[in-house]
Parts: sequence; C-alpha cells; structure tokens
Amino acid sequence: MFIAIEGIDGAGKSTQARLLVRWLDQQGRSAVLCRDPGSTDLGEEVRKLLLASRHQIGAKAQMLLYMAARAQMVDELIAPTLYKRKAIVVCDRYVLSNVVYQGYGCGLDPEVIWQVGQVATGGVMPQLTIVLDLEVHTAQQRLQGPRDRIETLGQDFFQRLVEGYRQEAQRHSHNIVLVPADRSVEEIHQEICQLVQSRLLHPRKEDS
Amino acid sequence: MFIAIEGIDGAGKSTQARLLVRWLDQQGRSAVLCRDPGSTDLGEEVRKLLLASRHQIGAKAQMLLYMAARAQMVDELIAPTLYKRKAIVVCDRYVLSNVVYQGYGCGLDPEVIWQVGQVATGGVMPQLTIVLDLEVHTAQQRLQGPRDRIETLGQDFFQRLVEGYRQEAQRHSHNIVLVPADRSVEEIHQEICQLVQSRLLHPRKEDS
Repeated sequence: MFIAIEGIDGAGKSTQARLLVRWLDQQGRSAVLCRDPGSTDLGEEVRKLLLASRHQIGAKAQMLLYMAARAQMVDELIAPTLYKRKAIVVCDRYVLSNVVYQGYGCGLDPEVIWQVGQVATGGVMPQLTIVLDLEVHTAQQRLQGPRDRIETLGQDFFQRLVEGYRQEAQRHSHNIVLVPADRSVEEIHQEICQLVQSRLLHPRKEDS
Repeated sequence: MFIAIEGIDGAGKSTQARLLVRWLDQQGRSAVLCRDPGSTDLGEEVRKLLLASRHQIGAKAQMLLYMAARAQMVDELIAPTLYKRKAIVVCDRYVLSNVVYQGYGCGLDPEVIWQVGQVATGGVMPQLTIVLDLEVHTAQQRLQGPRDRIETLGQDFFQRLVEGYRQEAQRHSHNIVLVPADRSVEEIHQEICQLVQSRLLHPRKEDS
C-alpha cells in the first residue's frame, strides 16, 4: 500500500505524513516515511543541487532531476518496502508534484510529465494521493522563512499550482483526493485517517 | 547543423570532435564543441555525481540524470548556438549514448530511452551522428587509466555496447553512420570530414 501526500509549500505535508505513519503504526501496520526528492544518497544530492540558488535550472532539467532521484528511491526503498517487506509507504510528494510544479506552474505538458513518471517509477504509483488543498494566501501566512519562495516565484505561480492540483484531482478522482487544509492539524489528520481507513484498509466492495 | 560523435570508451571521440571543430573553422564555418554530460554548470555537477563511485546509481536514475544535464545543455547552449548564432554544434556523446549504455548495456528498453530523449531535448537531435566503431580489445589496449572501467564493467558489457551501436546505425542509417576507428587519428579524421562535407555541407540532391 502506497500513499502520497501532496500540496503547495506551507500546506502541512510533512506534518501530516509523519502523523499518518504514527497512526498506521498504532493500527499495527508497519509504515515507512519517505520524502521526494530525498531518502537516498542520490536523492539528497539532487535535492541540494535543485536548492542551490547559484544554478539556474530550466523546468525540463528540474523535472528530469526529480525523476532521476525518484527512480533511485523506487529501486532502493519504495519497491523493497512494498513488495519484500510488505509494509506501507507514505511519501511526502511524488510524480504529481512535477506534474503540478513544472507542468501547471512552468508550462511543460502535464501529460508528458505523467509519461516520464511512468518510465522513472516503472509504474510504481500510489494507490491513494492526498492533496492538502489550501489557498495561496493561507499558505503564505503559515510559512516563515520559506515565505521568500512564494514571494520570489510570485503569487500567480502558486495560484497555478493550487488550480493544477484541483484539476488533477478532478481528472483522477479514483485515486487523488483533495483534503481541505485550512483547519487544525488534528482535524486534517482525522480526515486523512478516515480516508486511508475507508479507501485502503477496509474498502467496501463497491469501492474496490 | 548539429553533429554528434559517439562510440565506446577509448574509441577516440574527444580527439575526433576537436579535430572536426578545427576543420570546420578552417572551412569558415563557426562551430562550437560541447560534451555530454557537461558544458553547463549543471552538466558538470551531474557528471561529478555520476562518476562519484560512492554512489551506487541504478541504470534508470543514471539515464534520467544524463537526460537532465542534456535538457539544460540544449536550453543554455545547443539551441542558442544552432538557432540564434546559426553556428554548428559538435557534441561528444548525446542521446544515443544512453540508448546504448543504459539500453543495450544495462537492459533498459532502447525505444523508451529514445522517447525520453525526445522529451529532454525538445526534439533537438543531430542531423548526423558519427559512431567510432572499434572492437573492445582494441579500445582496451588504447586506454591507460580508464582501462579499469572496462575491466570493472566487464568485456561482455562493452561487447553489448559495440553491438548496440551497430544495431542502431543499421536502424537509423539515414543519420547514424559507423566509421571504422581501428586506424590512425588522421585517417579517421579525413573520413569524418568527407562525411560531413558530403552529407551536410554540400549534400547532393538525392541525399537531401
């Protein structure tokens, strides 16, 4: 079982991913938390490269760097966790982040990004992607240091991301679900647990 | 006009690429030499990452890292040289290297690599690719330090590369040409100049 947590900067992804893993553990389900990019030596190097402001990296090269890190993470961590350890993977961002950021945000074709994502992951995709849905100004209020990022890239850019997440959730409603994130951490966590419970742990027959 | 020089380690690519650029200059044709991966800040970082032996990087992640570096090189260097400066680009390796190394060498699907190559380059592909064709044992005799690489990866691996280059040249005979490289630097250079002359500088009508 593979769950991805998505959303714009400041939506609360890392917090919710951690809480979800803790809750799954409490349910007696072994779960592994990973972050994309990251979680492998190569992933951390790629993360550094992408964040180093001295490099001006184009959208296509960025997307391919994320894909490289992801391919390695699937090989080293996600596939062994899912198929050998038979444990649950909870991933902070995945292919959808590229679709939204480099696609809706920077103008690459979202469909092409999904296709490269299929190649990079060998088809290892989440059964459930939870998008923390938040207006840009709310995310901006939450962020302290990283607020710069929204200010640098511009409100318009982040508005395109919010809308990109909403459009993709509409197009793939069977496995991408919006969760309103303008609420307390605990309320959001409760809704995520219910979603995971009903969609993955105890799906009703008509849902499966 | 965009020319790629290809071949296994030790085939003499860098030497021939340099000589070709010098010859083009002598013909009054402005030409820019680049190497893939490399030629941009990101490309050099990716090259370092790939060569750092402390990282065990899977074939798919390798291929995607090369593609990321290449996408950046197309944006920063190749496209502006071809379409703004209207100069010639001579590139030491390009998409075909991934098709052969990670495809024929490591078992990824060559066709999928060509497809990712189309995405990464935005369709900016060489009109002519010259493959320096050499038996593995001859390349091995030529290499001094890097001989280790052939010994580490194995003769079989390099044999698959030689055959991969030959198969791709057969499949794409309109723009991938094998040049026998078991000859002197000068003889190979002369043949490459003739090829470029007849195929690109002064193509006969029936070739174009």
